[in-house]
Amino acid sequence: MIAGWGPDDRDGLTPLPGGVTATPGFRASGIVSGVKPSGRPDLALVVADGPATAAVMTTTNLVKAPACVLAERHAADGHARAVVVNAGNANVCTPEAEAHAERLTAAAATALDLDPTEVLPMSTGVIGVPLPIETIEAAMPEAAAALTADGGGRAAEAIMTTDTVTKEVAIAVTDDAGGRCVIAGMAKGVGMIEPAMATLLVVLTTDAPINGALLQQLLRGAVGRTFNRISVDGDGSTSDTVALLATGTAEHPPGIDAITRGLTAVCADLAHAVVADGEGATRVAAITVRGAAQEADAERLARAVATSLLVRAAIHGADPNWGRILMAMGTAGVAFEPRRVSVAIGGVTVCRFGVATSFDRGIASAAMRKPEVTIDVDLGVGTAAATLLTCDLTPEYVRFNAEYTT
Amino acid sequence: MIAGWGPDDRDGLTPLPGGVTATPGFRASGIVSGVKPSGRPDLALVVADGPATAAVMTTTNLVKAPACVLAERHAADGHARAVVVNAGNANVCTPEAEAHAERLTAAAATALDLDPTEVLPMSTGVIGVPLPIETIEAAMPEAAAALTADGGGRAAEAIMTTDTVTKEVAIAVTDDAGGRCVIAGMAKGVGMIEPAMATLLVVLTTDAPINGALLQQLLRGAVGRTFNRISVDGDGSTSDTVALLATGTAEHPPGIDAITRGLTAVCADLAHAVVADGEGATRVAAITVRGAAQEADAERLARAVATSLLVRAAIHGADPNWGRILMAMGTAGVAFEPRRVSVAIGGVTVCRFGVATSFDRGIASAAMRKPEVTIDVDLGVGTAAATLLTCDLTPEYVRFNAEYTT
Repeated sequence: MIAGWGPDDRDGLTPLPGGVTATPGFRASGIVSGVKPSGRPDLALVVADGPATAAVMTTTNLVKAPACVLAERHAADGHARAVVVNAGNANVCTPEAEAHAERLTAAAATALDLDPTEVLPMSTGVIGVPLPIETIEAAMPEAAAALTADGGGRAAEAIMTTDTVTKEVAIAVTDDAGGRCVIAGMAKGVGMIEPAMATLLVVLTTDAPINGALLQQLLRGAVGRTFNRISVDGDGSTSDTVALLATGTAEHPPGIDAITRGLTAVCADLAHAVVADGEGATRVAAITVRGAAQEADAERLARAVATSLLVRAAIHGADPNWGRILMAMGTAGVAFEPRRVSVAIGGVTVCRFGVATSFDRGIASAAMRKPEVTIDVDLGVGTAAATLLTCDLTPEYVRFNAEYTT
Repeated sequence: MIAGWGPDDRDGLTPLPGGVTATPGFRASGIVSGVKPSGRPDLALVVADGPATAAVMTTTNLVKAPACVLAERHAADGHARAVVVNAGNANVCTPEAEAHAERLTAAAATALDLDPTEVLPMSTGVIGVPLPIETIEAAMPEAAAALTADGGGRAAEAIMTTDTVTKEVAIAVTDDAGGRCVIAGMAKGVGMIEPAMATLLVVLTTDAPINGALLQQLLRGAVGRTFNRISVDGDGSTSDTVALLATGTAEHPPGIDAITRGLTAVCADLAHAVVADGEGATRVAAITVRGAAQEADAERLARAVATSLLVRAAIHGADPNWGRILMAMGTAGVAFEPRRVSVAIGGVTVCRFGVATSFDRGIASAAMRKPEVTIDVDLGVGTAAATLLTCDLTPEYVRFNAEYTT
C-alpha cells in the first residue's frame, strides 16, 4: 500500500477473502431486476441477521438524492438492519423521485419482514430519468430469497455502474489482548469521484459492538481520511452514500484503537480500488503534501494538485512537468513560500527550494510510467501532512464521458 | 456575439481591422529571437510614440512570475510606454528568474531609449527552465528596429505559445456628441485558462485620455466580466498579465461610458477568441446563470458548471445530460432551490423546476453540435445573472497536455 495512505500501521490487521459477507452475521444478494439496459445485475441487498447499529454519511452536494435523505433519516436513531441498492438509475431530479425512494425502501422492508426505518436505500446511475420502480418492486422478493452468507460478491457486482471490477475488502482486526472482529465492505465508483465521496456507494459491515453515536464518529473519521481524499474528476455526485452496519456479535472484540485502524484500512483499500478503476485511468497517483503548518493546509494543497487537469494529463504522459504542480498549488488559496518547496516525483527530486534540480528526466519519466506514481511535496515549514489519491486523465476518460447517456 | 457576453449593447462600437497598432500612436514588432525551438517568432514589442498612462493586472496565483511582479511595479505610478513579451519560456521557478526579468526589461528599455520603469515585461511558456536571456538581449535591437505602425499582427504572432491563431481586436468607439477613440488589443491563450486570467497575456492600447488610477479601475471592471469569466481547464497560471496603455492623443474622445463599453467589448472579444482556441477545443459553450439573488452567486454557479469535466465532456459529446449541470451547481457552495431551477440547452428547455421535461433529445443534441453552445440556467429567485465561457473537453486536450514538455 502507498506510504501515507490509510492507517499509520497495519499491525493486527489481516486481510480476509470476500467483502460484506466476510463479517459473520450478514447475508447479501445481487440479482437482475431489469433496470440496467445491459441486463446485468442491478439490485443488491445486504442484511444483518439480527439487530445492528448503523451510521451513514451522504453527499454534500446541494442537489441530494431522495435515497440519501431517507438513508440519513433511517440511520438517525443509530440503528438499521439492511441496505438496499439499485444501480442504473440514480432516482434524482424526477417528479416522483421521493415517492420512488420510499417505495424502494418499503419493497425491501416488506421482502425482508423489517420496518422500513430499518432499511437504508441507495440509488446510482443516470440522473433525471424516472426510476422504473415497478420493475424493482417485482424483483425484490427474488433479491430477498437470494440472500446467502456468501453473497457479498454478487452484491458487489450488482451495485456497479461504469466500474470495470468489483471492489471488496475484508479485514480481521485483532489486538494483543486477544480481541478479534471483522470489518468488511464493498464499493462502487467510478466517475464523479471527488471530495465528499462523489458517486460513490459504500456498504461496510462489522461484528464489532459499537453504539450508533460512536459508530457515526468512527465512520466520519475514516471517511475523512480516505473517501474524502480521492478525486477522479473533481465532480461530486448527488447520490454518494457510505453506510456502516455493526452487529456487535463479536465475542471478544478488540479495543477501539484497533477497530479505528481497521475501519480506516478497509475504507483506504476500497477508496484505492475506486481510484484505480477511475474512468479511463491507467495509473494511480498519490499526492502527498508534507511539511505543512496544519493538516488542513496540506490537504487543500494536495487537492489542488490532484484536481489539476494539467497535472493529471502530465501524469498520463509520464511527463515530470513539476512546474504544473507548483502552478496548481498556487491556486489553492493556501499561503506557502515557493522558495521553501521541494518536489519529488516517483522518488526523484525534481525541484528543491522552488527551483529546478538537474534531475534525470528519463529516470523521472520512467518512475511515472508505473501503475502507482508518487508526487511528494515538502513545504519546508511544519510537520503536518496529507495524502490524496487521484488517477491520470486520459483521452479515454473524455471519450467515455462524452458518450455516457447518448 | 453571444447574448450576455460583453457589454450590454454595442451602440457606437465599430470593429476595425488589426490589433494593438490599430490605435494611432502605437508601433509594434514581432521577431524571432531564438527561444522557441520551433524557430517561430517569440519576441514582441508594443510601444507608444509618446507618454502614456498604464494599468496592469496579473495572476492571483501564489507562485507569481517575476515579470508579473515587475510589470505591476512599473505600472504602479500609472505610467508606462512599452510592453515587451517573450514567448516559449515563462521565466518562473529558476534561480535566476528575477534577474532575468530585470534584464529582459532593461534590454527593451535600452533598445527603445526608455527608462526601465517605463517598460512592462511579460513572459510565457514552460516553467522551471532557465530563460536564455543572452539570446533575447542579442535580439532586442532587431525587435526595436522592426517597430512599425502596422506591426500589431506580427506582435500578436510572436506572443503565441500553443495558440493556433493570432487573437487581435480593434474597435472604434464613438458617442452621440461626436467623440471618438480607438481601443485595441491582442491576446494569447490557451491552456491554464481559468479565473484570474490564467496563462493569458493581453496587451491593450487606446488613444483615449484616462489617468492611471481611472485606467486601472476601468481595466479591473472589464477584466472581471471577461477574462475572469472564461475557463479552459480550471488551472490558473503563474504568468497571466493584462496591460493597457493609453496615450490620450484622441482629439475629441467619447464619454467614459462609451469608453467603458468599448474596453469591455475588446476584452470580451479577445476572451472569446482565447476560449475558441482552447487546447483541443471544438466548440465554445456560454454558461449563463440568471434569476439569482446576486451576481456573485450567479458567477460561482456558472463557474462550477463551466469547470465540470463531466459537463464539458458532455458538451463535446453533444449530450444534453443536464443532470450533470445540476450536479455541478450542487458543488458550488452556493445555496439554491433545485425545485425552482430550469435549464435550457441551445434554447431547448430540458429541465423545468428541477425535473426533466419531455424534450426532444435529438433537437437538443443537434443544438449542442454547433460551434457555440448555450447553457441557460434560471434559478427562479432574483434578477442577477452572469455568463461564463468555456470550451468542450476533448481527447485531444488530454493528448496534447500529456505531451507538452517531453
